[in-house]
Amino acid sequence: MTAGGAGVTVTAMRAMRTGIAADEALRSVLAEAAPLPAELVEAGAALGRVLAAPVAARRTLPPAGCSAMDGYALRAADLAEAGPGRAVCLRVGGEVAAGGRAAPLAPGEAARIFTGAPLPQGADAVVPQEQAEALAATGEVRIAVAAPPGAHIRRAGEDVRAGDEVLPAGARLGPGQIGMLAALGRTLAAVHRRPRVALLSSGDELVEPDGDASGGRIVSSNAYALAAQCREAGALPINLGIARDNPAALTALLRAGLEADLLVSTAGVSVGDHDHVRPALAALGCRLVFWGVRVKPGYPVAFGVFDGAPGAASSDGAAADGAPGDTGAAAAGAAPSVDAAGAAGAAPGRRGPLVFALPGNPVSAMVSFEQLVRPVLLRMGGHRNLSRPVLRAELGETLRKSAGRLHYVRVQLSREGGRIVARSTGNQSSGALHSMTLADGLLIFPEAATELPKGSEARVQLLDPGILCEPA
Amino acid sequence: MTAGGAGVTVTAMRAMRTGIAADEALRSVLAEAAPLPAELVEAGAALGRVLAAPVAARRTLPPAGCSAMDGYALRAADLAEAGPGRAVCLRVGGEVAAGGRAAPLAPGEAARIFTGAPLPQGADAVVPQEQAEALAATGEVRIAVAAPPGAHIRRAGEDVRAGDEVLPAGARLGPGQIGMLAALGRTLAAVHRRPRVALLSSGDELVEPDGDASGGRIVSSNAYALAAQCREAGALPINLGIARDNPAALTALLRAGLEADLLVSTAGVSVGDHDHVRPALAALGCRLVFWGVRVKPGYPVAFGVFDGAPGAASSDGAAADGAPGDTGAAAAGAAPSVDAAGAAGAAPGRRGPLVFALPGNPVSAMVSFEQLVRPVLLRMGGHRNLSRPVLRAELGETLRKSAGRLHYVRVQLSREGGRIVARSTGNQSSGALHSMTLADGLLIFPEAATELPKGSEARVQLLDPGILCEPA
Repeated sequence: MTAGGAGVTVTAMRAMRTGIAADEALRSVLAEAAPLPAELVEAGAALGRVLAAPVAARRTLPPAGCSAMDGYALRAADLAEAGPGRAVCLRVGGEVAAGGRAAPLAPGEAARIFTGAPLPQGADAVVPQEQAEALAATGEVRIAVAAPPGAHIRRAGEDVRAGDEVLPAGARLGPGQIGMLAALGRTLAAVHRRPRVALLSSGDELVEPDGDASGGRIVSSNAYALAAQCREAGALPINLGIARDNPAALTALLRAGLEADLLVSTAGVSVGDHDHVRPALAALGCRLVFWGVRVKPGYPVAFGVFDGAPGAASSDGAAADGAPGDTGAAAAGAAPSVDAAGAAGAAPGRRGPLVFALPGNPVSAMVSFEQLVRPVLLRMGGHRNLSRPVLRAELGETLRKSAGRLHYVRVQLSREGGRIVARSTGNQSSGALHSMTLADGLLIFPEAATELPKGSEARVQLLDPGILCEPA
Repeated sequence: MTAGGAGVTVTAMRAMRTGIAADEALRSVLAEAAPLPAELVEAGAALGRVLAAPVAARRTLPPAGCSAMDGYALRAADLAEAGPGRAVCLRVGGEVAAGGRAAPLAPGEAARIFTGAPLPQGADAVVPQEQAEALAATGEVRIAVAAPPGAHIRRAGEDVRAGDEVLPAGARLGPGQIGMLAALGRTLAAVHRRPRVALLSSGDELVEPDGDASGGRIVSSNAYALAAQCREAGALPINLGIARDNPAALTALLRAGLEADLLVSTAGVSVGDHDHVRPALAALGCRLVFWGVRVKPGYPVAFGVFDGAPGAASSDGAAADGAPGDTGAAAAGAAPSVDAAGAAGAAPGRRGPLVFALPGNPVSAMVSFEQLVRPVLLRMGGHRNLSRPVLRAELGETLRKSAGRLHYVRVQLSREGGRIVARSTGNQSSGALHSMTLADGLLIFPEAATELPKGSEARVQLLDPGILCEPA
């Protein structure tokens, strides 16, 4: 890091907040996130995506009045006298199948009809075949029930009328919505683009999972857990790999992530002498919004934004003055660099990716992602519900901590006499990935609290909704 | 259909149950479903899949005792006298970074250490840098707190010991599990194969969504909604398209689906004259287990299995005697046909796909799938939780029906004063797809009940867990 780069860091850190509360951190990151622009995708591939524009019906469903049952179409008036012990016989004048065309119905006449078939002109009711007796010898049908006008009939437009806004913007496309698109003849859907998330790790000790982990080296697992978290949230992860612990290597990898919508690094954001991430980000023109959230695990998390074109400031200090902090407005007006052009699809008004520098401990990284990155990804994807399902659970054991940080306690949930009971998964160390694999949820141990007594209630963010399922 | 085919139908229907209750139908279909065999997939692509075999650790995590903080490694005994106002100064003998190697620590000496770095021989505690003052002039560090042995240290194997079964068979691979696989150097995972589901529709009136829907033709939307439901349940849909309403066309398409794990048709399973699905299935050697479930929507659903090699009986009657019903054991011993070999990956003991013939009305098809097909797909995929999350909700309005069928009522949910309140989405017609797109869940209106008064409670299967999310 040159003197020029260091100067940028100082400038950028001027407005940075430190040691903020969990809810303030969430508000801060969501304030910078907006739904991404629309893209057209094939409707069948749009499951879980969110409509960026409403869908109006080009056709009426059903297109014409039709039968809701297999049976006989008739005039309700012809059955006025029918009832138990008072059967009426009608001549069966024809048959109409789904997709077929029906001849008009004369008074005193019925038509054999099948589910979905268009109602013959003159008919205003259907009697299900279970309530009718076909008399083969005479070509008649014998019916001993009355049928009110409209019985077992689907009116034209009963489901949808041409011109109706059938699916609103913001609707999540589940199976019902995808079926509706198909029924309307829509094979494409305009949905919010999926956020692209560039992931990188930093550390001289790290090797990839297929690498040689002998000699005290540590497998870099964070990018893999975080990529899975991205996918769960509907985002597209891009794994940039491992940066070595020096400013040049780190800057090169960060720069490669500038075209993404989010840039998420793990490790290198503590206050240790080897933590190069924050200065490298600042040198690229990233304004740090906050560093440090009063939570455990996951205190040393940094969040930053690009007010100007990203990459305008380089790690060797060139153009550093033009990019960050207070001078951002001027930089934003400059001709975009190649990097900025690539990032043009980011949130409105934003010139580069949102940046999260997460801690290196596996559980800290995952929990930080869960609390701050996931809600941002969901909002970018157009979703309205940004939280996990949250339940109130009873403490199955007393939990204690010191005041000053909110704790996310990994818990297992069980049903005991109608109540949902939460117990710690064991080792709550921020390095204990195994206890993360056992967790059904994260229990919120509030910042000011020092004890949650056994039997008391607490909120639990559900990572796995299994506790709400019923046994088969 | 020839006389031979019709004979098969009669044989197969002998053991068939009709008009069974919802819970009996679910038990029947699950009795025929088993987790599919394992396949190896890349760990990063295994999100949401279920482990078919346990994963044992080949290495210990952390591999060696290491620091949990940035700070100073030292001997706890050297701080025995330290405390507020009683600072101890230790000579800083060196520095050890993550991935580095540490020189042994002499008594009275400390080493600068970073998170994840291996503990120097002799050190048994770490003091965080926030609690230490580096004295640059003397090369010492000044500390005014005591540190118990083990403070801020991660013991070797604290997370995982080599040989431990870390992830059990049956574990669902979420982000934590995928991170753990990476940390263990495992880049592949043995997971239950995804069920393949062949989907087909039948009806002369149907056109595909990109087709010409004029002249009373109806767009075939079911396969698209059901394909989305398959994907939600982790299955692979295969859309075979639309069969016309004649036995030969239907049989040809059903035959094309015999290599799948499930064969799911919609329409053509009522008792109308145009319903060819059941006889065609029987002619292919499918034994119908039940037809008709006492629910609404979705009464006319059929479920069948192949006791012998599928397709041994053909639609022209050849070999029909060898396949269905009571003679299944003999047929199972025969040399497998080409179709049977293709279906060899199906559930243990099963010679062909499980077959669901669902109603043709869009909501009936979706709700039937939800209640009967989805649990089967989840079990085949190795999942243990086979139901949706189920909540108790308060009725926001009185619902009425006649006794005799369980109703699945499409409802919207809202929070009102801490309670979750359910109200009908409106038109509950089995053709009203729009009201399905508005549904947060399906409220269970029990078979025997005729009224659910406003203010009473009922179970709701959650299609969308949004009601449990917290506002951002």
